[in-house]
Amino acid sequence: MTSIALDAMGGDRAPAEIVAGAVMAAADGVDVVLVGERDQLLGELDRHGAELPIVNATERIGMGEDPARALREKPNSSISVAARLVKGGEAGAFVSAGSTGAAMAAAAIVIGRTEAVHRPALASVIPTPAGAILILDCGANLEVKAEHLLQFGVMGSVAAEVFFGQTSPRIGLLNNGEEPGKGRNLERDAFKLLSESGLNFVGNVEGRDLGADKADVFVTDGFVGNIALKTTEGVAAMVATMVLDAVSSLSDEVVEQVAKAVRPIRDRLDYENTGGAHLLGVNGVVVIAHGSSGRVAMRNALRMARDGMERDLVGRVRDQLTAIERERNVRALSP
Amino acid sequence: MTSIALDAMGGDRAPAEIVAGAVMAAADGVDVVLVGERDQLLGELDRHGAELPIVNATERIGMGEDPARALREKPNSSISVAARLVKGGEAGAFVSAGSTGAAMAAAAIVIGRTEAVHRPALASVIPTPAGAILILDCGANLEVKAEHLLQFGVMGSVAAEVFFGQTSPRIGLLNNGEEPGKGRNLERDAFKLLSESGLNFVGNVEGRDLGADKADVFVTDGFVGNIALKTTEGVAAMVATMVLDAVSSLSDEVVEQVAKAVRPIRDRLDYENTGGAHLLGVNGVVVIAHGSSGRVAMRNALRMARDGMERDLVGRVRDQLTAIERERNVRALSP
Repeated sequence: MTSIALDAMGGDRAPAEIVAGAVMAAADGVDVVLVGERDQLLGELDRHGAELPIVNATERIGMGEDPARALREKPNSSISVAARLVKGGEAGAFVSAGSTGAAMAAAAIVIGRTEAVHRPALASVIPTPAGAILILDCGANLEVKAEHLLQFGVMGSVAAEVFFGQTSPRIGLLNNGEEPGKGRNLERDAFKLLSESGLNFVGNVEGRDLGADKADVFVTDGFVGNIALKTTEGVAAMVATMVLDAVSSLSDEVVEQVAKAVRPIRDRLDYENTGGAHLLGVNGVVVIAHGSSGRVAMRNALRMARDGMERDLVGRVRDQLTAIERERNVRALSP
Repeated sequence: MTSIALDAMGGDRAPAEIVAGAVMAAADGVDVVLVGERDQLLGELDRHGAELPIVNATERIGMGEDPARALREKPNSSISVAARLVKGGEAGAFVSAGSTGAAMAAAAIVIGRTEAVHRPALASVIPTPAGAILILDCGANLEVKAEHLLQFGVMGSVAAEVFFGQTSPRIGLLNNGEEPGKGRNLERDAFKLLSESGLNFVGNVEGRDLGADKADVFVTDGFVGNIALKTTEGVAAMVATMVLDAVSSLSDEVVEQVAKAVRPIRDRLDYENTGGAHLLGVNGVVVIAHGSSGRVAMRNALRMARDGMERDLVGRVRDQLTAIERERNVRALSP
């Protein structure tokens, strides 16, 4: 159960770059099973002179398709088959750069929710000067209740431990101000629940704190999380472009030196190096990479999936949530 | 009624920088009335050898105070007195770098809503490579209905015409995806209303479009708008810092050249040059500047206030909203 079912047909650059990333990860000792059209995948493996196990899947779900419908009508899609490998215990993790909606739906429907989880959530990794943060939910649940935000905090805390190696990660509630009492009813209720949770809750955090090392995990609903995540990507790209344009009129030598100095930043802000988003709260490790992922992004996504399995992400989410729900029930019953 | 009531006591750097900005604006022909503690303001004017009309206000509302309570308990605060000047017709605009909450509350309660406006909204200016965009609401209304988002679209359209000189500004609905049908019930309903509004509605826009010249006005609720705005500020600052750090190890000559090339970007992204946010939908032009505003920011805020008066922001908002509401009623009655 330590192998990873990789949707080899999902993503703008599939299958060539997906297979190339799998070959790189396999060389690092990651146990990958390719899921997709066998003949195409054999052809790709040939180019690398590599051998990897293949599970045949004859259909493919496109980016524009309605997720629920596509899953129903294409039971032999690479996404469906890969999810079933996890459900059946033949794999412990599922990685895809295909349709985020279809991958999330397959994980929730086929693999299934973890015991004690109300709503699985999509946690995205954002690189920052201090390292990286997780923000969740980023789009799995557009409208939620305070109890769900509490669970997102717990799952995010476990994920930050597992993927970043942090002890007692700082959990922040994304809000429109720092003071307690800020926000909608949702945030005010969630603030109370998070305060009582035993998590390392640092209180409300704002949009401007996303790059400011105030929290390791930013908790919010899926609509707000999606807007914050995409705003981050858009503004980072905008500023990087503005800087390179501004510098381009200087001498070739200066441009070269600047480009060399700025490259590590671009690399840090590049999703290629973040490894993708994690669907937390399902009975398997699920990593959803960017649609435009190349081989480096896929290798990183596969490494993260392996870390998630080795460090028992699923079991720890289940145990922590069960403990917290038990504690809440005890408190509710106490006089 | 063409003078601007300036809260000279509001802001981290009041009154010195506020008065300095007023003196600069007055030299440009802007008609400013200083509102605040007379003796202090006379002392500040003396430094510049300038004379400006003063209306005495003996109290001051601090940044941390509860807005509604502060307004009730401090009727002689500079914010209250300035708002009453607009209410009484002695000024046509109100500018403050003080507490955003208190300034918004004073505008809504004292100056009052414009006819046909359901909810006043805070529109912030974000500079972009292509110019600038408006995003509203940025915090006046955390939870809204679809009809409110329609009105925000109308008010934002008028404001973009008035402040940016745009004809037929592009109105986008901030959403978690581009396709129609995306979003919460709120966005799906608002999409329909905006489509039928006669505005230049370009459909759904995403967080990553904030710097991408896809729309001139981004419409959303006050919670999401606040998060998106502050995320933009935070990420822009983060990337600028990372770039300057990366370059700092190069030779002095290169650093100097790069700093010179990058300065115009920093200036563009600097709130000092944006002139602040606009509270739309009240019976006067209201500009709320950043709390940390210096003289340049204040001069720009005062210029924007003057533009708003000269180009009849208030009357145009009222007329456009009235026309659109009439049109909706006619449609609702037609068979």
